[in-house]
Amino acid sequence: MTSFDLRIAIVGSGTIGLSFAALHLSHPTKRIQVVIHDPRPDIEDYVKTTLPEYVGADVSLPQLLESKQLIISSTLSTALESVDIVQEQGPENVSFKQKLWPQIEKAAPSTALFWSSTSGIPSSVQGVNMQEPARLLVVHPFNPPHIMPVLEIVPPRNISTDKDASKDYIDKTIGYWKTLNRSPVVLHEEVTGFVANRLSFALFREAIHLVNSGVVTAAEVDRIVEESMGPRWAVRGPFWSYHAGGGKEQGIRGLLKKVGGTVQACWDDAGTPSLRPEGEGSVAAWEDALCQQVEQSYGVLDDEDLRDRDEKTRKVLAITRA
Amino acid sequence: MTSFDLRIAIVGSGTIGLSFAALHLSHPTKRIQVVIHDPRPDIEDYVKTTLPEYVGADVSLPQLLESKQLIISSTLSTALESVDIVQEQGPENVSFKQKLWPQIEKAAPSTALFWSSTSGIPSSVQGVNMQEPARLLVVHPFNPPHIMPVLEIVPPRNISTDKDASKDYIDKTIGYWKTLNRSPVVLHEEVTGFVANRLSFALFREAIHLVNSGVVTAAEVDRIVEESMGPRWAVRGPFWSYHAGGGKEQGIRGLLKKVGGTVQACWDDAGTPSLRPEGEGSVAAWEDALCQQVEQSYGVLDDEDLRDRDEKTRKVLAITRA
Repeated sequence: MTSFDLRIAIVGSGTIGLSFAALHLSHPTKRIQVVIHDPRPDIEDYVKTTLPEYVGADVSLPQLLESKQLIISSTLSTALESVDIVQEQGPENVSFKQKLWPQIEKAAPSTALFWSSTSGIPSSVQGVNMQEPARLLVVHPFNPPHIMPVLEIVPPRNISTDKDASKDYIDKTIGYWKTLNRSPVVLHEEVTGFVANRLSFALFREAIHLVNSGVVTAAEVDRIVEESMGPRWAVRGPFWSYHAGGGKEQGIRGLLKKVGGTVQACWDDAGTPSLRPEGEGSVAAWEDALCQQVEQSYGVLDDEDLRDRDEKTRKVLAITRA
Repeated sequence: MTSFDLRIAIVGSGTIGLSFAALHLSHPTKRIQVVIHDPRPDIEDYVKTTLPEYVGADVSLPQLLESKQLIISSTLSTALESVDIVQEQGPENVSFKQKLWPQIEKAAPSTALFWSSTSGIPSSVQGVNMQEPARLLVVHPFNPPHIMPVLEIVPPRNISTDKDASKDYIDKTIGYWKTLNRSPVVLHEEVTGFVANRLSFALFREAIHLVNSGVVTAAEVDRIVEESMGPRWAVRGPFWSYHAGGGKEQGIRGLLKKVGGTVQACWDDAGTPSLRPEGEGSVAAWEDALCQQVEQSYGVLDDEDLRDRDEKTRKVLAITRA
């Protein structure tokens, strides 16, 4: 019998669950055993038709099943036996998740890590009926997770149990994802919708507003984004980019000084509430704190930084516009 | 004497002006003569130190000057002689631009196209003192224009002169940029900040809010964007992406049905005003119009569309994460 480095249970296997399963099975250094559990009656057929699309042509599904690297199990307690990690993708329903986690906690080993892929239900809400709610972390992917590197790790807040336990689970969680060349980011607060979707939805809202107002069509919005901020932000995020945009000497401070009025006019015209205080030329406390943070993270950008950005941007555009 | 296909005057030559100059000089099929005009006393030195960075190592600046493919002129009337296009990047100051355009109109041939690179002053405001304000188009780039393909073309609105004149200028403008492999988008309304910056600033606002609230650091925001929506939107814009996210059968309608509540909760939590009407499950008129537009543009996405997206996304990530 072959031994495995880790056994991971995928509880709930829609497209996100299978995408994660494919990712674990592709681990470059560890031999991962993946157990898929889902109560749907056609689960075997579903896995057999959908998973090959994610794992790639060079992996044989019959061989994965034959070698027990992949197991499909309709019984939760069997699926969770000797498991190291439980990754849950059940329905986005509070009472469903609140009932599920105590069952998982009971069936899984006491050392297992518990991850929820939820896009909106905080772990502090999901875990209210657990013995040790600090074990439960949100590990929120950007779809599809076998391709997109980011993972938002959101620990429960306001829990009464020992916080060190949670820290230990966080460290182990981060450690695993880094071995898979993923990019875990631990959020410092449990916030509605987490971060990636909030940022995306903010732009989406303005896009809807502009289409709705007849300024551009939806397809024109897509083209604009694909040919401007899409490639820009693929290479460098918004704060780095605005820091670069303000010029070498002043960075993000110069940017806010130079275009702050236009930024504010756009926010006002879109009807979003002000982040800046009233009064001409005044700088809010947060603005200074933000600029300090950006400066401490990136320092003074030089010509080499911009050349690197431009070179990568050209390469990205060569792919996306091909 | 060599002849040129087109003569373009760059009026105001900071980094945007020189970036455009480099772009024109790189034209794949047309031989463009570029005349740079700027009143700054050190303009020759500035062009000689900065332009080589943009035109690339295989272009010789002395040769461009020798062959008169590039001319630096301190006199506006000389610069505009026999010109086909005037591209303006002066200071972002309403009265400056309102004084400048009548001078340009007087000095340039009556057939010349007039383009302003302004990031915020509409052409209907800039051109109030012109004889033919319909000639003046905003041609707003995303920085730096010699790399980023998008150009927002914004014709003046509410002008009393013949609108056909403006249409002719728009067609010629689009035609030129397409020969340069650029991506011009004509906006249907003159809107504050135009489209690309409005979209970017909307995400920027939410990013500031989340940093300001202590949820993430600025550098973490950048990493999240670079590893999720950056590469996604480089490949496919937000409407296409959400259309894909809703699944084959329902598309963007399915997406809004499935995550509409979370989207709304994020907007509410961020304090942005509602786009959706009150009431559970109701669909606003705009929502239906938007979905129809997306469906008409993209139809039903199939596996091949998603495979293409995923393949390109992998390639983009291989560049940006190298």
